[in-house]
Amino acid sequence: MQFELTKEYISELKDCLHGDLKADLLHEVNKLHPADIADISDELTAEEVALLYQCLDDEIATDVLIELEEDVRERLLRNLTPKEIAENFIDNMDSDDAADIMAELSDEKKDEVISAITDSDLASDIVDLLLYPEDSAGGLMAKELIKVRIDWTLIKCLREMRKQATDIENVYTIYVVDNQEKLIGTLSLKKLLLAPDGSTVKDLYFEDVRSVKAYEMSDQIASIMEKYDLVVLPVVDELNRLIGRITIDDIVDVIKEEADKDYQMASGISESVDSSDSVRVLTRARLPWLLVGLLGGVLGALVIGQYEDTLQIYPEMALFIPLIAAMGGNVGVQSSAIIVQGLANNSLGFSNLFQRLGKEFLVALLNGLVCSILIFIYTIIFKDSNELAATVSIALVLVIIFAGLFGTFVPLMLDKYEIDPALATGPFITTMNDIVGLFIYFGIGHLMYLWL
Amino acid sequence: MQFELTKEYISELKDCLHGDLKADLLHEVNKLHPADIADISDELTAEEVALLYQCLDDEIATDVLIELEEDVRERLLRNLTPKEIAENFIDNMDSDDAADIMAELSDEKKDEVISAITDSDLASDIVDLLLYPEDSAGGLMAKELIKVRIDWTLIKCLREMRKQATDIENVYTIYVVDNQEKLIGTLSLKKLLLAPDGSTVKDLYFEDVRSVKAYEMSDQIASIMEKYDLVVLPVVDELNRLIGRITIDDIVDVIKEEADKDYQMASGISESVDSSDSVRVLTRARLPWLLVGLLGGVLGALVIGQYEDTLQIYPEMALFIPLIAAMGGNVGVQSSAIIVQGLANNSLGFSNLFQRLGKEFLVALLNGLVCSILIFIYTIIFKDSNELAATVSIALVLVIIFAGLFGTFVPLMLDKYEIDPALATGPFITTMNDIVGLFIYFGIGHLMYLWL
Repeated sequence: MQFELTKEYISELKDCLHGDLKADLLHEVNKLHPADIADISDELTAEEVALLYQCLDDEIATDVLIELEEDVRERLLRNLTPKEIAENFIDNMDSDDAADIMAELSDEKKDEVISAITDSDLASDIVDLLLYPEDSAGGLMAKELIKVRIDWTLIKCLREMRKQATDIENVYTIYVVDNQEKLIGTLSLKKLLLAPDGSTVKDLYFEDVRSVKAYEMSDQIASIMEKYDLVVLPVVDELNRLIGRITIDDIVDVIKEEADKDYQMASGISESVDSSDSVRVLTRARLPWLLVGLLGGVLGALVIGQYEDTLQIYPEMALFIPLIAAMGGNVGVQSSAIIVQGLANNSLGFSNLFQRLGKEFLVALLNGLVCSILIFIYTIIFKDSNELAATVSIALVLVIIFAGLFGTFVPLMLDKYEIDPALATGPFITTMNDIVGLFIYFGIGHLMYLWL
Repeated sequence: MQFELTKEYISELKDCLHGDLKADLLHEVNKLHPADIADISDELTAEEVALLYQCLDDEIATDVLIELEEDVRERLLRNLTPKEIAENFIDNMDSDDAADIMAELSDEKKDEVISAITDSDLASDIVDLLLYPEDSAGGLMAKELIKVRIDWTLIKCLREMRKQATDIENVYTIYVVDNQEKLIGTLSLKKLLLAPDGSTVKDLYFEDVRSVKAYEMSDQIASIMEKYDLVVLPVVDELNRLIGRITIDDIVDVIKEEADKDYQMASGISESVDSSDSVRVLTRARLPWLLVGLLGGVLGALVIGQYEDTLQIYPEMALFIPLIAAMGGNVGVQSSAIIVQGLANNSLGFSNLFQRLGKEFLVALLNGLVCSILIFIYTIIFKDSNELAATVSIALVLVIIFAGLFGTFVPLMLDKYEIDPALATGPFITTMNDIVGLFIYFGIGHLMYLWL
């Protein structure tokens, strides 16, 4: 029952697909969970995936299709006619999954598939859902849900729910609407289980219901569901009419994607990739920030070039260039990461910009002093140069303070102007701090040389 | 209903708490969601939180307690007697929440609270749960669940379920066990809703049930629930006897924490902090990696010191020190991040180490050649030095390739020896690549000087 994907299994399966041992295979694979079959598909060629699909039962094939990686799915659907897509897959799907998959098709093919769908309710639901942006509540919701009217009796309720439930995989909550379809509450299954005969919805329902509007964005929805520990969240239109529901499994994916995106941004990767992507995709995702770093390096060279005379008098200054650059970068990444994470988790509280910068100043000052004293001692002992020791340690504390403040300020500003604050982490902040750090270091070295 | 926390609200509330307008306040705050009240508590002093608590209804106070930040909760509980904690809070909680809160108490206080719990079933459940590590299935699960025996009739089933359901907030799944309490399947509420009278559990239940053992760790559980889109997952003991269930809301927190931890690690922050923590905590979280960076800087100085003669002949080489260091760091962070994320998401597939390094070699070579050609052109044009241009561009491509391979290799090795691969991202990899990068750069510069 609990399946583990191994290299041996894949190679056996490949042998079966290329040979004619299909009877065995058919028997075996259909018993796996669709998510496992999707994982298997990731390891096969497009041709093998197509062969494997022919061995799957219709219903399982549909569930697997939903779980596939986008590129594997695209290759599979490319070879099917719109009629096949509609009848073999879309007709068996929930509206939200169907809409997600339709959104990946070309406009032309999309229209053809829609007109080939036999279930006209589903077709109209899909057309509705395709109107919403993919990452809005409307784009995430499913139209299938169980709703009862406030004035129904328990008996009528159960009868209607039986009708509605045939369409729905998991019943989490029963929504209560008024006679204008406006959402006014929920009815818990537990209440229903415990209710005495003869009750009406009005006696049993719970008035307090949290909902989101259809245009609400996915990150907002994720933070609501996370904060209030919700498993399902109803979606309403502008008039508060119930139009769909979002389930936690879709939101878990959103939370994961948001976290992955921020992580990749902080690591200098510009689009969502994983290690199985092609060399071309990986290179394209990584090159942009490397070019930013390259530009930063060239600017750094220009800064040092400005102080060539200082460097000629104090050649030892070259020794600590990497130290100054690295420390500025590290501090900047730390302080910006704390802000970016605070913004993402809504945990920043109410301090204003100046309080925040004041606090960061203290943290950076403390860290800076510790590092600076250590490097002062090292330089005095091993380099035996008071000027160099003074230059490096003064520059270091200033660089750490600047980098800390800059790393705090930039993401807050980006967020204020509704740019993704995660842009401020990673190579951008390191590169900026490298350049400013060199200015500070050589500026102080230059002053030392003038004074001493 | 949908509450937004504002600065004005907090200051009004503070005025109320310090004045004697409590009647109004009591009325108002009790209507908010516990998670919102917990957010409010984050903005208050310990004294104010204690005052606010006196205004809350018992049941709400309990729910709020569960939602509080650990440090706020600790301060609040410190001033209560074990009897108060047991009777006002623990008695009203689900076993999993109760055990989580008990785990935060000192051993002595824990024992006193347990003996003060009036509900003896709950007390024994809590004692059971406290045996498991916090981040294992046993530590995450709640003991409350609905289970039915395979041989029961639908009528008996409903009667027993009514009894069991009074304890449980959300009924997701009904578990089916045999007469030795072994988990053998599930009964969906939908099936139950649609079942004809006179059915037995045996006719209706679904045999295929995914479960975890009590010792399974939280990251494994998260990836199972995420992969199979589960809302609730049963926990069994070694003999496959049903002992509890884990709900998705707890797992969403695990997913969030894992992602935050990796992000902080990549940003050079050594313990979980957020911007509202004290200056002391923030400094302590950030200093360790800065000291690593400092050590790296000193080692970098030693490397450059080795090549002082080269630097005297080619003083322009100093110009590109930041570029070489920065590029090595950036590439290393990119390649290690891709591996760390692949390991976290179980998406690495089956390539072996050499295939992986081979692919990274290609990606790094491509990126390296682009950057290297650009810097060659720049140096030829603006610095007018063939030797420098050759040195920088050859060094750059080698540094990028080395950093890419090293960034791929280290997290894979750490993972193999069961050390958290996320350690390999952030300051560690940047620092290592800085040092090696400088060796490569000056080594090539030295050879150029010997040859040309």
